[in-house]
Amino acid sequence: MRTVYVNGDYLPETEAKVSIFDRAFLMADGVYEVTSVLGGKLIDFEGHLARLERSLNELDIKKPAVFDDLLDIHRELVRANQIEDGLVYLQVTRGSDGDRDFAFPDRETTEPTLVLFTQSKPGLATSPQAETGLKIISIDDQRWGRRDIKTVQLLYPSMGKMMAKAAGCDDAWMVEEGHVTEGTSNNAYIVKDGKIITRQLSNDILHGITRAAVLRFAREAQMTVEERLFTVDEAKDADEAFVTSASAFVMPVVEIDGQGVGTGTPGPVAKRLREIYLEESQNAAI
Amino acid sequence: MRTVYVNGDYLPETEAKVSIFDRAFLMADGVYEVTSVLGGKLIDFEGHLARLERSLNELDIKKPAVFDDLLDIHRELVRANQIEDGLVYLQVTRGSDGDRDFAFPDRETTEPTLVLFTQSKPGLATSPQAETGLKIISIDDQRWGRRDIKTVQLLYPSMGKMMAKAAGCDDAWMVEEGHVTEGTSNNAYIVKDGKIITRQLSNDILHGITRAAVLRFAREAQMTVEERLFTVDEAKDADEAFVTSASAFVMPVVEIDGQGVGTGTPGPVAKRLREIYLEESQNAAI
Repeated sequence: MRTVYVNGDYLPETEAKVSIFDRAFLMADGVYEVTSVLGGKLIDFEGHLARLERSLNELDIKKPAVFDDLLDIHRELVRANQIEDGLVYLQVTRGSDGDRDFAFPDRETTEPTLVLFTQSKPGLATSPQAETGLKIISIDDQRWGRRDIKTVQLLYPSMGKMMAKAAGCDDAWMVEEGHVTEGTSNNAYIVKDGKIITRQLSNDILHGITRAAVLRFAREAQMTVEERLFTVDEAKDADEAFVTSASAFVMPVVEIDGQGVGTGTPGPVAKRLREIYLEESQNAAI
Repeated sequence: MRTVYVNGDYLPETEAKVSIFDRAFLMADGVYEVTSVLGGKLIDFEGHLARLERSLNELDIKKPAVFDDLLDIHRELVRANQIEDGLVYLQVTRGSDGDRDFAFPDRETTEPTLVLFTQSKPGLATSPQAETGLKIISIDDQRWGRRDIKTVQLLYPSMGKMMAKAAGCDDAWMVEEGHVTEGTSNNAYIVKDGKIITRQLSNDILHGITRAAVLRFAREAQMTVEERLFTVDEAKDADEAFVTSASAFVMPVVEIDGQGVGTGTPGPVAKRLREIYLEESQNAAI
C-alpha cells in the first residue's frame, strides 16, 4: 500500500480522495510534473519545480502554500514508499469553491489542491526498451494550443497511446501542418548526417526538462543541434530517431509507420546521449 | 447541504469524493451533460442521454451499469434537493485501476465513475439577461480537435470566460481560421435579412441539444436556417445575434467586440425563438 500526499496529509493510497467539485475533475483545470527517482535520488528536481511555477503562472493558479516544502514532500514519499528507482507524480489544481462554474473561483478564498504520489519502477535506467528501441506511428495532433503549459488535458495523448498499441507499436508522434510536434509524453528528435534535429520551442510543444538537459549535454559534447521543424518523411529518412522524457530519459526510436529508421536498431547518437544524460543527471541528483 | 450522487450513493455534497487516481482528475478522461430543470421537470432529457451515449462510444468508455436508471437518478436528485428551476450535472469518467498510465485501464475490470449533482437557479427561464442581452468578445479557438465529444477538457473555455470578464463582457465567441466556432459553453448564431445562420455540425463544435431543438422549431415556424461558416465581421454586421445552450436556452447577443449588433438590443428572432423553445420544451419536459 503506497503512501500518497493530499493537501498536507500523508495517506494510504486507497483513502486519497478529492472533492467531485475539484476543478481538475470537472474542468481539467490543473497542471502536473513527473520527476524521476534513480538510486533513491531526484533527477532534475529544480527544473521540474521551475516549470511547475511557470505553468501555475500561465494559468493564474495560486502556488500551494507548501511550495517551498515540495522537495521535502518528494523526499518523504520516496522514503515512505522505499522508492529506489521510479518517479514522483505531482499535481496542482485550481481547487474548488464547492460548486461548478466556468469562471475561476475567488483566488483569495480558494486554495489549490496539491497531490503527490510515487510509482516504483525497478531498473528504470536499464530498461530493455533502450536496447530494442521504440516502434512509433504518426498521428494528427489534435491537442489544444497551449502545449507549453503542462496541463492534465491528456485525453488525446492517451488516445494516441491506444492508437499506437492497436497498431502493435509503442508510441505515437503527433503531426501538425505537416511537421512533427512531439510524442504523446516525450519530445521527438531525428539525427541526420551527424546533426541532432528537434522542433524549436513554442506554444506547440512541451518545454521538456530532459530536452533542455540533453541538448545542453549534446552541445557540450560538440554535437551539432538544429532546433527546427521536421516532417515524418524526414524522420523516416533519418539516420536515427529518439525521444526524451523525464521517465524514459533518452529512448531510441527504430521504426516509424512500419518503416525502419537508419539501420532499424538504436543508433550511436541516441545511445551516447542516453549514457551522458544518465551519468550527468545522476551525478546532479538530490 | 445538497445531496449528490457518486457511484451508487446519495451523499452530502461535502462527502462527495473520488480517488485521486480517477482518470478525469489525472487526464481529463471523462464526459458530461447538463440538463435543465424547469418547474421541477427535466428539459430535453432524452437528447442529453443520447449525446452522453455517443460521447462514451467515441471515447470507448464503458456505459455505467446504471445507465438505464439515469432518469430515476436525475429525478431523485431533483426531489431530494427540491429543485424547481436549475440544472442537473452528470459526469462519467473512465474510472481508475488505482494507478496512472497513458494507456487506458482494462475495460473489463475497471468501472466508470458516475457523478451527478444539482444546481438550483430560481427563475432560470426568466433571466434578466434575456432582456438586456449578452456582450461578447471574440477570441482565438485554442481547443482540441474533437469538440463534438462533450469532454471535461474545459480549461480553455474557462479561460475564455475569464478573458470576457476581464473585458467587462459576459462571454466569448471562439474563432478558428477566420470563422466563429461557438461560445465558451453555447452554440453561436447570427440573423441577417431574416435568415438564421449558424455553423454546420462537424468535429469543430458541440452538437448542441438545444441547438437541434431550436433549429427544428425555427424551421417549423417557416424561418430560413442556413448552416454554414460565418465570420466575426459578418456577425458585427448582422441584424441580430444569439446563443443557445441547455441552461441559457436562447439568449440574445447585443454586442461583439464593443460594437453593437443591429439595434444593440435583443432582436425579434431571438426573442421569438426563446419563447417558442421555452414553451415547447416545457410542454415536453418529463
